[in-house]
Order: sequence, then C-alpha cells, then structure tokens
Amino acid sequence: MATSRIRKAMADIEAGTVAAQIVGTLSRNGGMSAAQIARLTGLARSTVSTAVAKLKQSRVVVEVERMALEGAGRPGTLLALNPLAGTCVGVHLADREVQFVVADMSHTFIAERRFVVGADYDPEQALAIVKAAFEEFYEANGLSRQSLLGAGISVSGPVGRNGVLQRGGILPKWAGLNIKILFSSVFEAPILVDNESNCAALAELKWGAARGFPDFVMFKMDLGVGGAIVNNGHVITGVSGGAGEFGHVSINPEGELCRCGNRGCLELYASFVKPIEQLTRVHRKPMTIESAIALAETGDAGAIRMIADVAEYGGRGLAMVGTILNPPHFIIGGRLALAGEMLFAPMRKSYERHTLIKAQDGMPTTFGLGKFTENDSLLGAVALVLDNHQALVAT
Amino acid sequence: MATSRIRKAMADIEAGTVAAQIVGTLSRNGGMSAAQIARLTGLARSTVSTAVAKLKQSRVVVEVERMALEGAGRPGTLLALNPLAGTCVGVHLADREVQFVVADMSHTFIAERRFVVGADYDPEQALAIVKAAFEEFYEANGLSRQSLLGAGISVSGPVGRNGVLQRGGILPKWAGLNIKILFSSVFEAPILVDNESNCAALAELKWGAARGFPDFVMFKMDLGVGGAIVNNGHVITGVSGGAGEFGHVSINPEGELCRCGNRGCLELYASFVKPIEQLTRVHRKPMTIESAIALAETGDAGAIRMIADVAEYGGRGLAMVGTILNPPHFIIGGRLALAGEMLFAPMRKSYERHTLIKAQDGMPTTFGLGKFTENDSLLGAVALVLDNHQALVAT
Repeated sequence: MATSRIRKAMADIEAGTVAAQIVGTLSRNGGMSAAQIARLTGLARSTVSTAVAKLKQSRVVVEVERMALEGAGRPGTLLALNPLAGTCVGVHLADREVQFVVADMSHTFIAERRFVVGADYDPEQALAIVKAAFEEFYEANGLSRQSLLGAGISVSGPVGRNGVLQRGGILPKWAGLNIKILFSSVFEAPILVDNESNCAALAELKWGAARGFPDFVMFKMDLGVGGAIVNNGHVITGVSGGAGEFGHVSINPEGELCRCGNRGCLELYASFVKPIEQLTRVHRKPMTIESAIALAETGDAGAIRMIADVAEYGGRGLAMVGTILNPPHFIIGGRLALAGEMLFAPMRKSYERHTLIKAQDGMPTTFGLGKFTENDSLLGAVALVLDNHQALVAT
Repeated sequence: MATSRIRKAMADIEAGTVAAQIVGTLSRNGGMSAAQIARLTGLARSTVSTAVAKLKQSRVVVEVERMALEGAGRPGTLLALNPLAGTCVGVHLADREVQFVVADMSHTFIAERRFVVGADYDPEQALAIVKAAFEEFYEANGLSRQSLLGAGISVSGPVGRNGVLQRGGILPKWAGLNIKILFSSVFEAPILVDNESNCAALAELKWGAARGFPDFVMFKMDLGVGGAIVNNGHVITGVSGGAGEFGHVSINPEGELCRCGNRGCLELYASFVKPIEQLTRVHRKPMTIESAIALAETGDAGAIRMIADVAEYGGRGLAMVGTILNPPHFIIGGRLALAGEMLFAPMRKSYERHTLIKAQDGMPTTFGLGKFTENDSLLGAVALVLDNHQALVAT
C-alpha cells in the first residue's frame, strides 16, 4: 500500500511549515524547479533543497520530465507532487450538460466526459450521473476513491460564499440550493463551488492564455454572455458571487425581457441565441454556434453579418467593462471566440469606438483568445481544488 | 535642532526591519495601540514593545491622547509618529479650483485652503499658487520646508503609473503632461500622483466612511460622475489609470457628445450640469448644486424633480457597476450626496430595478454616504504620501 503511505505522509505535513508551503506551491502551480519554488515562496534556496529532499524521501514529491507537464517552460526535470499523493475531480453544471473530469495532484488530467441532459435537469439527475461517472472512472483507471482530496464544482450561475446558488437562470431547479451540501452525498472529501466563469478564468490563469497576467478580465460569448474579473491573481467574486455578470448589464431599460428578470440585458444582443434563430429561419434547418461559424467561413453573408452584429454589441460590453476597470488584458472565451477575426475585427473596432481610454491614450488594453474554449469551466473546477489544497489537507 | 535629530533617526531606520514595519504601519494608520500594531504586522507583542521603546527613545514615536486623533476607538493613550518627524502636503487639481493642505506624520491636518481659478488654468498658474501656499503655510505654522517627506497630487483625470495625465477633459491644458515632473520644481521630496476619485476613496478608507470596508466602490456625483474601485484595501487603478471612470460608460451610443469625445456617457444624464441649466432658466438666476439642494429642501417641485431624475440615472450607473462587480458596499460621494434622501430614495429604487442581484438574492450590497464630500480628494492626496512613507524614506 505505497499509495496510502504517500497520502498519509502528505496528510501528516503540519500547516505553516516549510514542507506545507512547498506542497501548497506545487499543488497550485504544478511542476516547477526548486529555484522557482524558492522565488514564489520567498524561502532560501537551501531551505527549499533540504525540505524537498525530505519530501522526495517520503515520495510526496517526485521528479518528472518536463514534457509530461503542460506549459512548463524549460527542459530537464521538474519537481511535482506525486500523482499517487491524491486525486481531485471537477464537475461543471452547465446549460443542458453535466461535465466530469478526474485529475491528480501533479496536474495530470486522467479522464473527462460530457453528459447531455435536459434544459431543466434537477439535482437528483445530476448527482446520479456524477456518482456513476466517479465510480466508473476510478474503477477504470485503477484509482482508489479514498485518494480523493477534493471536488470542485463549477456552476452556471452566481454562487455565494456559502455554496448556495443565488439565481437559477440556467439551472432553474437549483436556485437557492446549497451545492456543497448536495454533492457531499457523492464525495467524501472537501467540496469547493464557484461560478462557471470564475472557474474558466482560473483555468486560463493556471494553464492557459492568462499565464503571466495577474490582472485580466475574462469575457465569454456563447449562448450566454458572462465573465470574470481577476485582480492580483485572484478572482473578484463579489459579495453574493455575482461579480463578472457582464451579460446582465442592462443596456436598454425599455428592451425585451431577459431570463434574469430585467429588461434589455447585454446578453440579449451579444449572445448567439437570436442569431441562431435567424439563421435557422433563413436556412430552414437547425443551426448551432459551430455550424453558423462554419457557414460564415464559406463566405455566407448572413452568417458573417450575424457574427459582426454580435461583435458590435460584444464590443460595447467590453467597452463598458473597459471604462469601469481599464484592465491590462481581456481574454475572450466562449464558443463565439472560435469565429476568430470575423468576430474580433468588428469587436475591437466597436470597443475602440465606445470605450473611454482609446488605443492612443497611455497603455492600451490588449486582447487575447482563451485557450480552453471547450472546457475552461470544467478545468477551472479542478483548479479550485488545487488552489486550496493546503486548506483541504488541514481540514 | 530636536526636529532634525528626529527626522534623521527616522531616515536612519533600515528598510525591512521591525522598526521600519512599525513606522510604516503608524504612517498608514495613524495613532494605534501596541496591540493593534502587533495584530496588523503579525509581529509578536513583545517584539513590538521592544522596538517601540527604542522608537520612543529616539522620539520617532510618541504617545498621544486618544482625543487628539480622529476616529480612534478606545480611551487612553495611543502610539503615533512624532508630528516633528515630518510633514506632507496634498494638492488637488480640481475643476476651476486648486486645493492645498498641510499635514504631519501623526495624521494631523495643519492648514487647508482652496484657490479659485479659471476653467482652463494651466500648469504655470497652478504651480505659482501651490508654491506661494507652500511657502506661506510653512512660514505661518513655524514649519521647516526641509521637513517635507512627500507631496501627494490629486488630479481631475486619469493618471498613468508614470504620472502622466492621460486625458484632459477637465484640465485641457494638462493633457499628456507629467504631473510628477511639473511639481518637482516646487517640492524637493518624492511626489505621488493619482486620480481624484482614487484619492477620494483612499481618504474614505483611511479616515472616513469606508473604514472597515476593504472592498467597496466609491461613486461620486457632482458636476461630473466618477468613482473608484477598492479591492482588498487597494484602489484598482487600471492599466492606464482609467479604472473607475463610471461617468464615461456610454449608456446611449446615439446620445449627445460628451466632453470625453464619446456619445451618450452616463455623466451627461447623472451629473448636475444640465439640471443646473434648467433650474437657472426656470428661476432666472444662477444656480449651483448647493442652491438647488437648498431650494429642493424648501419643497420646490422643480428642484426635487431634477434631483430625482439624476437619481434615476445614478441608480442605473450604480446598477451597471453592481452587475459587473457585485461589491459589498457603495459609498456615494460628490456634492449631490448632500441632497440626502431626496437623492438616495429614488436612487436605491432605480438601482434595485436595474441591477442583477436584487436585495432578496443572497447578501445585499449596502450603501453609505461619504464622510468628506467637500475635500475627499485633497485629503486622499495626503493619504498617498502616508501610505507610501516607507518607500519615500528609502529613496
């Protein structure tokens, strides 16, 4: 039972010690050199070396080849937490989909799946899906369910600090429920819950397009519009978990009713729900974001126009956020980002037109494309666990 | 020359030492007990006592009566930096006004004055005013100009990290100029520059309505509309100093031209410029914010209506910021706040109507009134110096 010995060695590390600092740093950052650990923790290089030697002896820390790790910068071996030291799972409660992923403490993703469900799926259904996936995936990969260190849950909606979903726009049957308590029937480990866009931003910060940007705004355009604000490496969640709900800024108080209960929200103009309806009507066949982008790429004027119109409103939304936060960097996520320059060119023009600080004034805000358009929220659910590893082990 | 000995003793404190931590804490926070210093610095109580004893010996730190200090909570004596340890000045480059204040390191404000100038005053004029005031005030109060530890400059406009005014909306003749370099001809000490609303938020955080709110949004309504975002005790400045420019979110892209060069900015609807024009026309005499509020207090329907209409738009602006940031707390500043419930009642109603997270959803955002409506930016300019005292002494 080498595995359980390693887990015990990790659990025995006392909070506040040098070893705990190193384990926490590796949990948050994945594979790193001893020099990087020293820089991030502020510990002396020799202190790190001594502690790492002990952690290697107990096999909590192992050396891994650089290539085994995503995104690491230089050749040679790196230090990482032992994959046998523990596992974590991520769940994303999405619009008409439940997503599930398993990872280990070395930041290796082991298995991932999406389960299509009805628009009004309830907790009972989702819990059954997640429980079955948890059992199946752990069985199939020879993992012990006792190795679970924590589960991260990403939710399509604002989540309070207590784990309660504040509003049920996308998940009507979940409004007011405590997600943390619900999932404690499946996972015998600490559970962390956050909003899907906050999770997406965490994934981009940890492994994706936001590496090296401690201050950025994630702006997601899909069937909904949302985002997250990252300041000094931390997501601003807001007092009720509602920060970053860019799609629900009302840009027209006399406009149409939004699913949130207000009128004229940005999402009504900048999401792809209405363009899909229009394209479906014109082309007399069901369309999706992906098929509309494919159509636009063939030169279809209507599809190009739909993307450009959404880009105009997306640019207005970005300009509102830009005027309020003046961030160094925007990362555009959501499936509309897959349209590339067809979206970005008109959107940058609209941003420049409507924002206060123009490109020629001082330092301009830069733009980038999210790396994990397909599964950023799910990966971010795992990041929730890895970021809070020390707190979890201590509980 | 006791004064110069005290200043030398302070200058001789090495960066990173316990003494430097204590001096920095007292500079930022004003008078405190030894127990409060220990809590804020994380130092052991005994370590603090030993270091404080030495700092008292060199008279860098003195005991002061609680009553001498604004806002301190409990009776008895407190520790503070010696007023003789140094002075700082604050300057506020406002709309048609240059404001000047002198304070010392114990957080005591010594003298303050406003100088009315033309709308398009230039650096030459402002520098002459500030230089004369600096000389006169120091002479009149028996202060040595060599005691100046730093000067804080608050500017009506976005200021980059380098000290350059990015846009000259209110100060057209200052656009693109480096404020720091300009004022180095007057002050032989480090100069710190920030936007007026950021300074206002700092003043409220340090001495005013935001004490105890490390996360809040300052929303100012006056002849302009602006504000600041404070996260974890720090103002978010933005990449170009443009964060918090709430007044320049365009709420109507087809609206009237704004002084910023965009159309339909919130400021056109939520500032009191147009209401003053309307009231001046109807009452056939020049009106000001103050006289309009006084008129409304007598029951004048037109003045009440003007305040209510501005409140409706102010609430829309707050709702935009609330949907984007979901802050725990808003502090309303600017002279319109002096209208009290005539403004707040309709504004809260408008906020509730237009924001995403309503009062019944989770933790509600709370509202408060700024404490320093008349001179928050000026006081905040002094706060810039006090907050950066350690960095200044080290340079």
